[in-house]
Amino acid sequence: MPKIWADTMELHRRDMRASILDATAALIAEHGLGATTMLAIAERAGMGRATLYKYFRELDAVLLALHERDVASHLAELQAARDRQGTPWQRLERVLDTYARLAHVEHGSELVARMRHSESVARGFQQLGQLLQALLADAIAQGLVREDIPPPELAAFCIGALSDAHTLPSQAALRRRVQLTLAALRPAG
Amino acid sequence: MPKIWADTMELHRRDMRASILDATAALIAEHGLGATTMLAIAERAGMGRATLYKYFRELDAVLLALHERDVASHLAELQAARDRQGTPWQRLERVLDTYARLAHVEHGSELVARMRHSESVARGFQQLGQLLQALLADAIAQGLVREDIPPPELAAFCIGALSDAHTLPSQAALRRRVQLTLAALRPAG
Repeated sequence: MPKIWADTMELHRRDMRASILDATAALIAEHGLGATTMLAIAERAGMGRATLYKYFRELDAVLLALHERDVASHLAELQAARDRQGTPWQRLERVLDTYARLAHVEHGSELVARMRHSESVARGFQQLGQLLQALLADAIAQGLVREDIPPPELAAFCIGALSDAHTLPSQAALRRRVQLTLAALRPAG
Repeated sequence: MPKIWADTMELHRRDMRASILDATAALIAEHGLGATTMLAIAERAGMGRATLYKYFRELDAVLLALHERDVASHLAELQAARDRQGTPWQRLERVLDTYARLAHVEHGSELVARMRHSESVARGFQQLGQLLQALLADAIAQGLVREDIPPPELAAFCIGALSDAHTLPSQAALRRRVQLTLAALRPAG
């Protein structure tokens, strides 16, 4: 097959997969995970069920792919928040705000709960932990964060303290939770 | 049936149930939830399988009863920690230390994960939340805890910040986590 055809087909496959995952995310957000079936996904994505099954052999495979796409895009957002200018403290604050906001998105939390034993959840939390640890170490070096507790423990604390972010009732409550979490990190006065 | 017989039988039934739950807790602690079967429980409790099934019709019923017993005894311990003398701050510290220690017990965390959608978990967390909220309100009234965040949010933060206590590697790490959580509650300034 000429390369240009192969590229076109690959592009088409990628578009199809993206449409399927977009449709799934929309369904979960609107009707919950319980109502998200292969039939509903096919209808929402505007394709036949047979076509959908060519891309994903079962619902769990769709959910896993959606979750992996979420994790990748969340990590990219968190890295962007980390890399914007500012002191380590400001960057830490931005990363925690971003994480809390991402964790607050409804379809994400239901999906994470369903996928909680999957490797992609474990890998996502591991990468988040590493990102936080590095940032915390920078902040400690500049005297902005307490130095009496090792960065891995501080990072785990931050993740735990925001673990129920999806249950908080408002953006203001989310913001207060991040401030509370940050307050714990201040050097002991 | 004479009342004394009925009382004796009721006492016997209670002892049998307690032995079954003790055996189950020991099995989970030693071999994990996966290895805990009705047969293993019967053997460990020193009774026939038929006897065990007279008390519990299936494994999930044993696990639920064990979990409910844990929740009740944990709440009693937390209430005792709350009721010992001291300032609201000292009592709060004692309650959080106690909660972190209880959450650290291995068989408990595996069981809580399995039971996480059960009403008894929800009820347990609700009672813990109420206990913390009342204590936090007392501490706020005495100027010991920040007043810019409502007690229900502070209580949820404490529970979240200790939610991964069972993953912490040592008692010292557990102690540091409680101190970190408490640091967030101090009045600003």
